[in-house]
Amino acid sequence: MLSESTRYSQDQAAGLAGVEVEDVRPGYARASLIVGQNHLNGMGMAHGGIVFLLADTVFAHACNARGVKTVAAQCEITYHLPSCPNDRLTAVGTEVYLRGRKGLYDVVVTNQRDEVVAHFRGHSVALRG
Amino acid sequence: MLSESTRYSQDQAAGLAGVEVEDVRPGYARASLIVGQNHLNGMGMAHGGIVFLLADTVFAHACNARGVKTVAAQCEITYHLPSCPNDRLTAVGTEVYLRGRKGLYDVVVTNQRDEVVAHFRGHSVALRG
Amino acid sequence: MLSESTRYSQDQAAGLAGVEVEDVRPGYARASLIVGQNHLNGMGMAHGGIVFLLADTVFAHACNARGVKTVAAQCEITYHLPSCPNDRLTAVGTEVYLRGRKGLYDVVVTNQRDEVVAHFRGHSVALRG
Amino acid sequence: MLSESTRYSQDQAAGLAGVEVEDVRPGYARASLIVGQNHLNGMGMAHGGIVFLLADTVFAHACNARGVKTVAAQCEITYHLPSCPNDRLTAVGTEVYLRGRKGLYDVVVTNQRDEVVAHFRGHSVALRG
Repeated sequence: MLSESTRYSQDQAAGLAGVEVEDVRPGYARASLIVGQNHLNGMGMAHGGIVFLLADTVFAHACNARGVKTVAAQCEITYHLPSCPNDRLTAVGTEVYLRGRKGLYDVVVTNQRDEVVAHFRGHSVALRG
Repeated sequence: MLSESTRYSQDQAAGLAGVEVEDVRPGYARASLIVGQNHLNGMGMAHGGIVFLLADTVFAHACNARGVKTVAAQCEITYHLPSCPNDRLTAVGTEVYLRGRKGLYDVVVTNQRDEVVAHFRGHSVALRG
Repeated sequence: MLSESTRYSQDQAAGLAGVEVEDVRPGYARASLIVGQNHLNGMGMAHGGIVFLLADTVFAHACNARGVKTVAAQCEITYHLPSCPNDRLTAVGTEVYLRGRKGLYDVVVTNQRDEVVAHFRGHSVALRG
Repeated sequence: MLSESTRYSQDQAAGLAGVEVEDVRPGYARASLIVGQNHLNGMGMAHGGIVFLLADTVFAHACNARGVKTVAAQCEITYHLPSCPNDRLTAVGTEVYLRGRKGLYDVVVTNQRDEVVAHFRGHSVALRG
């Protein structure tokens, strides 16, 4: 897991978006993000892609935390509520299923009022060799 | 549509990620991105969230180009190939279905070798009033 | 809930497929199916559509058990293992999210060896009036 | 392809549901179904699982028509309109993507008034050996 945290400390894209990884354990990860001006879409709400990036980062940590290089095969996200500047979004990801090289992870994104902002489901596949 | 392009010229998140919107028409949009160091994940490939953000930006433009304020309800993305620094990714989005307030949009992301990097499907809902 | 069980006792399609509903409570349902010859696809395994129908039936019961007429807007299913004749499949559905007219339900389908056969996620919308 | 049509002529589940396969070519298939009493859910509309089974059958034919044994990994369906008894539903499936063992297929289900009833997207994987 040390190598994991080293690897992911070099996650440039998550850093670019201001994602802060708070906890990583096998099959579990948590990260947060404070919505800033540079996260907004043309409507003044947090861009869906930023909410996705937060959830996806949690997914990547959760599925890699066992030390086997693992990538996303397919992801989906359902948006429930918009987010505004200064909202604090927290994403918690848990492993739902792991068998052979394939895994399934659910991530829930909430805001500082504990309202669910989005549900994310990610399908992972471990690389060979 | 002028108001749309004005609105989306203020898309901060797409700008943060370096997404360049190239064409927007009702039910259609195209944008591109050159993969840079700040787009990489901990494995040195383009972060899935960046590819999603590119596709999602195209989706947002395509579904808003009719001038009715429209947001994403649900999106999914399937990754086919990884992307490396300096790859040029192009996302083309087309309207598959529009009825009442609900729409369905498909986005295909390709690289400079015309290989398909990802398929994205977005479900939109127009806001009331 | 009595009216619900009456209504769903008239679920012809579930009956056609041999789905047996075992338990229904608000936000929860369980049903099972024994794979028969008439459930097989051309490869001799349970048709994916039959596994879906089992899961979808559970989803319909779970999201209607509060007594508000509710339909499916979108569903997805991930298949993990094939099923053979005489396998006993059990689907358990739980409510993940409910806000206003929209709900999210997860269904897990297992076989008699407690192996996960499929994961299903359903998005529901309550009808007006 | 002869072996394919032989194989799928033994698709019991599609037969149980009254699905009639009309055309199968590599990367393409079409099938139809007339909604009967035994296809209804507890609300008197065609059960979502029946619409799925129709679309899934088309998907299975389209992805197997190249003669390589191929199964569904993941499917999703979006419902747009309900269907009533005697509606004639037609599902047309086309190959969107095929690379190595993985494929992506879109199926559109329409009724006799050419209204879109559902969109289906299926992810396939060819079996080894």
